[in-house]
Amino acid sequence: MKAVFFDGALKLSDVERPERAGHEVLIRVSHAGICNTDHEIIRGYVPGFNGILGHEFLGHVEEADDRSLIGRRVTAEINISCGKCEFCKKGLGRHCINRSVLGIINKNGAMAEYVAIPQENVFEIPSSIPDTDAIFIEPLAAALEILDQVVIGKEHSVLLIGDGKLALLIARVMSTTGCSLTVVGKHPEKLGLLEDLGIKTVPAGTFKQSPFDIVIEASGNPSAFALGLECVKPRGTFVLKSTYAGGFVFNPSAVVVNEITLMGSRCGRFEAAIKFLQMHKPGLETMISREFPIDDALEAFAYSARPDSLKVVLRIA
Amino acid sequence: MKAVFFDGALKLSDVERPERAGHEVLIRVSHAGICNTDHEIIRGYVPGFNGILGHEFLGHVEEADDRSLIGRRVTAEINISCGKCEFCKKGLGRHCINRSVLGIINKNGAMAEYVAIPQENVFEIPSSIPDTDAIFIEPLAAALEILDQVVIGKEHSVLLIGDGKLALLIARVMSTTGCSLTVVGKHPEKLGLLEDLGIKTVPAGTFKQSPFDIVIEASGNPSAFALGLECVKPRGTFVLKSTYAGGFVFNPSAVVVNEITLMGSRCGRFEAAIKFLQMHKPGLETMISREFPIDDALEAFAYSARPDSLKVVLRIA
Repeated sequence: MKAVFFDGALKLSDVERPERAGHEVLIRVSHAGICNTDHEIIRGYVPGFNGILGHEFLGHVEEADDRSLIGRRVTAEINISCGKCEFCKKGLGRHCINRSVLGIINKNGAMAEYVAIPQENVFEIPSSIPDTDAIFIEPLAAALEILDQVVIGKEHSVLLIGDGKLALLIARVMSTTGCSLTVVGKHPEKLGLLEDLGIKTVPAGTFKQSPFDIVIEASGNPSAFALGLECVKPRGTFVLKSTYAGGFVFNPSAVVVNEITLMGSRCGRFEAAIKFLQMHKPGLETMISREFPIDDALEAFAYSARPDSLKVVLRIA
Repeated sequence: MKAVFFDGALKLSDVERPERAGHEVLIRVSHAGICNTDHEIIRGYVPGFNGILGHEFLGHVEEADDRSLIGRRVTAEINISCGKCEFCKKGLGRHCINRSVLGIINKNGAMAEYVAIPQENVFEIPSSIPDTDAIFIEPLAAALEILDQVVIGKEHSVLLIGDGKLALLIARVMSTTGCSLTVVGKHPEKLGLLEDLGIKTVPAGTFKQSPFDIVIEASGNPSAFALGLECVKPRGTFVLKSTYAGGFVFNPSAVVVNEITLMGSRCGRFEAAIKFLQMHKPGLETMISREFPIDDALEAFAYSARPDSLKVVLRIA
């Protein structure tokens, strides 16, 4: 089968179709999204991964122990957990110490004609959700994770730094909380998508440091980390959604004196993302820059790396 | 009156006795403790302070609008707040944006024969608390602040890094929560004080990195920041009680991936510290290394800077 493969270099390969192992489900993939994490793997920032990329996808079940699943449109939770460690027992399989992660850690991903995934990871997509929203379930879950960690409501002022794919989803999530939201970004056309929704945006060049109850850093830029920290009120919360390519100089004294909470935030619950799409019908097709057939995967990755690009989707079946 | 004065250099000075202004209380100081913050001011790490040092003290009220206070043994909350800003209105006067801080920011401190302080900052010390416990009310409040910010109980494993004055108080506070506590430090004789209380300690040289639910950094050493972060479990909490003399290289990616919460923690509520001393009668005199008359203040500061020293108290009246 065709697959987008990384073994130190990115290539479109012809590989063996996966066999179901144990209680896995075999899915015929229809769409796969390109995420910044895929680019980080290619650039060598996520060491140790060799295999098929892709952790944002849709497809239809082709084989399963539970025959009622066959033919259903599905996606899957990307953290494959052991079910036995202390984190799994607390319902935090996303932090399983023995986990593999689809297309990221020790598990072939979904940029291929087929992917095999444990049945407990598979989520059926309700028919009311169009493909163009459903392709965002995984990153939307990551955006919603913030609300599992921090109470945010209409009494809070929130600054979001970043206007990339994840940041735009976070902005949509925040706008449903009733908070007073300001988004700072560098790309007028991306900020424009939020302005169209009635969300207040400020170009990075004209943003003036001011105090917020909650600051969310989703740009991955070390200078945004410093700016964000300066904008958190005493006793406020600084949510970190981005990883950083390298270290930078940090003095936590202001964190101590102002009793600021820094909170790392990563993957979220798929149930929450599916419910959000059902309730809010966000129409996320405006966030899809282009769709490419899997045969043009390398061109799709190059396009996706452009600063003005948003979500790029591989069409597989 | 005699006062320990800092104007770029530390000196014992003869200064004007303060006049009460507004609703202030005039206190005849009997004891003042030397804190690491005092040393940081002297070393120039707390810019802009010129005046009488000292923010840990006991004394007796000599003048007050409320005559029932006269003669009472008291101490005082060190943050002098405006009562009007958004933080004061939320009961967080310790974060008042207009605050002065006794002996630290824009307010003469208590290493002097007299100090004048707003009456709302003054706390009477119950007679059941000996002077040798009462002199620790301010740093004990800072130790207890952690319990206002983080839920800690018998289901939690806690690593405390540091064995200085504040760390030893934090260890005593943690031991009352029922948590599984481990203290790592560099000074066998200081760790010994905790071993005497049945608290598990490990010399820094033999400590092996291992996972804890909650890590508290109270050593002020940047290498302890890195070690502590590595010991926090996914979804765990890293409490920062120390400020740092300079910045250091930091990559928050592990904070994001493991969804760790970093929480700065500073001053605490005096009510909580007084109640703790009444309930637990901790007998903190073992933490007092030496007492010096105020005339020997410079010698007291030199003694207090020794690595093996714990609390040094100036006896003023």
